[in-house]
Amino acid sequence: MAKDWESIASRKQEERTSRIPKEWTLPSSIDQNRHNVLGVPRESGILTEDELRLTENYDATALLSGLSTGLLKSIDVVTAFCKRAAIAQQVTNCLTEIFFGDAIARAKQLDEQLARTGKPMGPLHGLPISIKDTFMVKGYDASLGVAAFCFQPAATNSVLVDLLLSLGAVLYCKTNVPQTMAALDSHNNVFGRTMNPINRKLTPGGSSGGEGALVAMRGSPLGIGTDIGGSIRVPALCNGLYGFKPSHGRVPYAGQQAAGLPGSSKVGIEATAGPIAVSMRDCELLMRVICDTTPSNLDPEVISQTWKQQASLQSSRPKKLRVGIMRTDGTVTSLPPILRLLDSVSQTLSSSLEVIDIDISPLGPQCLKCFNGFMSIDGGNFWFDTLEKHGESLSPWLQSRLKRRAQKSLDEVRDLQATRIDLQTKALEIWRESGGYWSTEDSKSGKGDRTLDVIVCPAAPHPVAPIDGWNSAHYTGLFNWLDYPAGIIPIRTIGEGDMQGEVPSYPPMNGWDKINRELWTKVDRKVYLGSSLTVQVVAPKLLERMLVDSMKVLDEALQPLRDGTADKRMSKI
Amino acid sequence: MAKDWESIASRKQEERTSRIPKEWTLPSSIDQNRHNVLGVPRESGILTEDELRLTENYDATALLSGLSTGLLKSIDVVTAFCKRAAIAQQVTNCLTEIFFGDAIARAKQLDEQLARTGKPMGPLHGLPISIKDTFMVKGYDASLGVAAFCFQPAATNSVLVDLLLSLGAVLYCKTNVPQTMAALDSHNNVFGRTMNPINRKLTPGGSSGGEGALVAMRGSPLGIGTDIGGSIRVPALCNGLYGFKPSHGRVPYAGQQAAGLPGSSKVGIEATAGPIAVSMRDCELLMRVICDTTPSNLDPEVISQTWKQQASLQSSRPKKLRVGIMRTDGTVTSLPPILRLLDSVSQTLSSSLEVIDIDISPLGPQCLKCFNGFMSIDGGNFWFDTLEKHGESLSPWLQSRLKRRAQKSLDEVRDLQATRIDLQTKALEIWRESGGYWSTEDSKSGKGDRTLDVIVCPAAPHPVAPIDGWNSAHYTGLFNWLDYPAGIIPIRTIGEGDMQGEVPSYPPMNGWDKINRELWTKVDRKVYLGSSLTVQVVAPKLLERMLVDSMKVLDEALQPLRDGTADKRMSKI
Repeated sequence: MAKDWESIASRKQEERTSRIPKEWTLPSSIDQNRHNVLGVPRESGILTEDELRLTENYDATALLSGLSTGLLKSIDVVTAFCKRAAIAQQVTNCLTEIFFGDAIARAKQLDEQLARTGKPMGPLHGLPISIKDTFMVKGYDASLGVAAFCFQPAATNSVLVDLLLSLGAVLYCKTNVPQTMAALDSHNNVFGRTMNPINRKLTPGGSSGGEGALVAMRGSPLGIGTDIGGSIRVPALCNGLYGFKPSHGRVPYAGQQAAGLPGSSKVGIEATAGPIAVSMRDCELLMRVICDTTPSNLDPEVISQTWKQQASLQSSRPKKLRVGIMRTDGTVTSLPPILRLLDSVSQTLSSSLEVIDIDISPLGPQCLKCFNGFMSIDGGNFWFDTLEKHGESLSPWLQSRLKRRAQKSLDEVRDLQATRIDLQTKALEIWRESGGYWSTEDSKSGKGDRTLDVIVCPAAPHPVAPIDGWNSAHYTGLFNWLDYPAGIIPIRTIGEGDMQGEVPSYPPMNGWDKINRELWTKVDRKVYLGSSLTVQVVAPKLLERMLVDSMKVLDEALQPLRDGTADKRMSKI
Repeated sequence: MAKDWESIASRKQEERTSRIPKEWTLPSSIDQNRHNVLGVPRESGILTEDELRLTENYDATALLSGLSTGLLKSIDVVTAFCKRAAIAQQVTNCLTEIFFGDAIARAKQLDEQLARTGKPMGPLHGLPISIKDTFMVKGYDASLGVAAFCFQPAATNSVLVDLLLSLGAVLYCKTNVPQTMAALDSHNNVFGRTMNPINRKLTPGGSSGGEGALVAMRGSPLGIGTDIGGSIRVPALCNGLYGFKPSHGRVPYAGQQAAGLPGSSKVGIEATAGPIAVSMRDCELLMRVICDTTPSNLDPEVISQTWKQQASLQSSRPKKLRVGIMRTDGTVTSLPPILRLLDSVSQTLSSSLEVIDIDISPLGPQCLKCFNGFMSIDGGNFWFDTLEKHGESLSPWLQSRLKRRAQKSLDEVRDLQATRIDLQTKALEIWRESGGYWSTEDSKSGKGDRTLDVIVCPAAPHPVAPIDGWNSAHYTGLFNWLDYPAGIIPIRTIGEGDMQGEVPSYPPMNGWDKINRELWTKVDRKVYLGSSLTVQVVAPKLLERMLVDSMKVLDEALQPLRDGTADKRMSKI
């Protein structure tokens, strides 16, 4: 067993540093160790006023309106985001592979092409997009921060990478992930730890943690993450962003670096790819343009259904949106600030929408038990074998959580699959008034015949956790396991008023519940001040367009709860 | 090990006989042992002239046009088909469970409801529909012809059964299947062997063989089968009918009698349910009305996409349909009558459509090797265990083909899954001119950018085989494994002119190819006279509506090849 991971990591980090132009290195006058580093790009003097404006005032949709007409030059936009990504890297350690040079060259080509033909290359013409390290980009590593995968440049692009390029996007960097991809911080031995730019004492989340930190720093107008148990939604939550996890079969996932043995996704849970963004309309944009390229021609797992061919909210619920409020997953009780947020969300939505309280206990714990079974099919063997190749130790978060165990047998996997289908069938009842999960009189008597459009619930039962303190992924993983699309809407930041409230006086329901309570009772709560409070929104399987439409309605309806911390990101160009 | 299957079978057969009214028993004057029994219902004197007309002159679509307006009474239509099904049972042994009484009572209710309200219950109002034995109907067995499952009446309906009832259909009988569901005749120890009504020396196919024989006898206007390797298409082929196998996720499959351990479909290949019919428009009808009930609310495996939300031919190819002609799967060379049919189909289509020869060798054999691996994951253990409970022996067709083997390991299954995804990705190239499978000059040079709409190919490399002589399911199973929708269009019957032609002089490619040649060289070819010649039509994954649209175009375009044997089934009421 070679113990040479350290030299590989150090070569890899040198390579990364060498890909940042010297003139984009932060001056030593900048204090990089303050808690909140969001202001560093502006203070650094590295970006021009125009570049600050381009990176701070617009979402991707706004930028595209300028890029597609030639009002903005791609080279200007791309250069601005490259600079800002370079700075984000220096203060949050969010990048893995950097290809600013390629990006600027492509941006120039796109500008010339638009000038020559008068036509944009596609609906993402000239827009810089950042992607998680798992995606393959020809000529660059997809190392996942593991020594065994370093210095093995990809020979082909992932399907989604090819698609984004065909739509006119400019790719310029890849972003950091946790070791094994199954952790909820973003630390690995090769690239180190990504920090949360809002508060460096808190986690940026994982596994698309680099993406979350980069977009929060406005080092990217739009990022692509992947999610098997919360890996898009947790970083969106931690960094105060919008995140959207589709169902399996909606966005091409093919051709990414494997985080398991070939074929393992087909016997386990399928990860999916989706956007991390600064606006709901940017999530919509990305989902729409990808679905409209008919990616089913390129990835056999993708369903042939354009955005227009998907049910819209207008078609399925022309009147008032009907929202289920789910306060608990039946396993872990949310901490006081989360429950208070849900209450205020429920109250605010009630004024314009139909709001129904739902309670999925005791279905939730059955689902989560099965979810945990799925997550341990391989017994960690793929990762332990991979890490051992260069003598790597486990990342801190994983040390108490991942053990090498025997792989499950085919019989055990088949049983898990049978339980999953059975519970997925039962879960369909959550959406129906007659199903037994609604807390209204008619529903209790089994009389009503209404159905929910979406469910609003926490994405975690606690605020953004301290580094390596994330408790469980149950509130997010549940919807991977059910294969429902789910997204994150940021609401506001935690203030002094949120410090109130105590955990219940009765004993914790289980170990997860106990640890969760400790995030309120054994941590100095003030660490949470200024961090994000968000809600998760969920729709039935494969109703991505319906969910996007509904999230836009909710985003608007929840405006009264906002505290002004949300950027003015949707200026017009 | 009890050896009591015979007494169970005999009780089960007595029960079945008792469910046929005495007055519907064939008079002894009828010769039931002639080769072609299609004329028996007319000769029997059991049906009135009106009942003969109702059962012989109309397809389901035509019947519905009368039923929905009250021009036809459901009780008359249902009674006519019950009588005819009773006769079909006596000459082909095609039924398992019979519930004529329930059906007639329901028909009466539907008639009354229509008279009272002026409104049909749904788009299938009053239409009798027959279903394969695998479907659960409350109060009746779903024994699959196996002693271990007899006398265990279902407590709930399968999802599709509930859906059909909610649409106004009248269910009146279930149809026979082969032991293990993985054979291509339809014989089991409990119900015996289903015969092909066109020629009792030939197989009716399987596994939906009872359904094929019943619909061919006009004992059902529309049947529902299931298909994991050809089980809808092979009986459609054998009985000169239309058959349509959708992709997984299109038609609800939940709640059927298990033909394997719970959860095994999720680690193997998914079976799908679809129509066996006398017209293409009936296949369309069934697919449309099922998709439009949003069955995704009831079966978590089903995709939320109404018929209208699926791509139509009009939307994807507004001009000339582009058809690929695939003569071989690369494993078994088709016998002379099949190749001649393909030639004449190609020539006929060329006059109005764009026709491209494609050759999928050597991709086909790789796919089929993996398909066979999938079919043997369980090593036959579920069925051997089930049969042993009552000391049952294997059906004749299975005796040389099914052996108890060790179940595959999780590693082997994962490898199979990985190979499948890899090959499914490669198979996407078949549809593209640049993919290397087209036999045109531009395609060979990789220059073209056209795509195919559908592929036309044989459903078997031989004519309808003698009893227990079906060779392999490769030509059908390939499209289950690729998860492409595929259907059968009957063209004409085999005549004296088809007796010509010999197998190639070079040695067979493999064992399958050798056995296939023997169906031409070691069998008296005259047995095939009067049996059906058909083509299979295939579309990319989940493009069911596009395939239905295309099959309607092809059905019309192939009219010049028809020899008048096709019934006049589409008279107007």
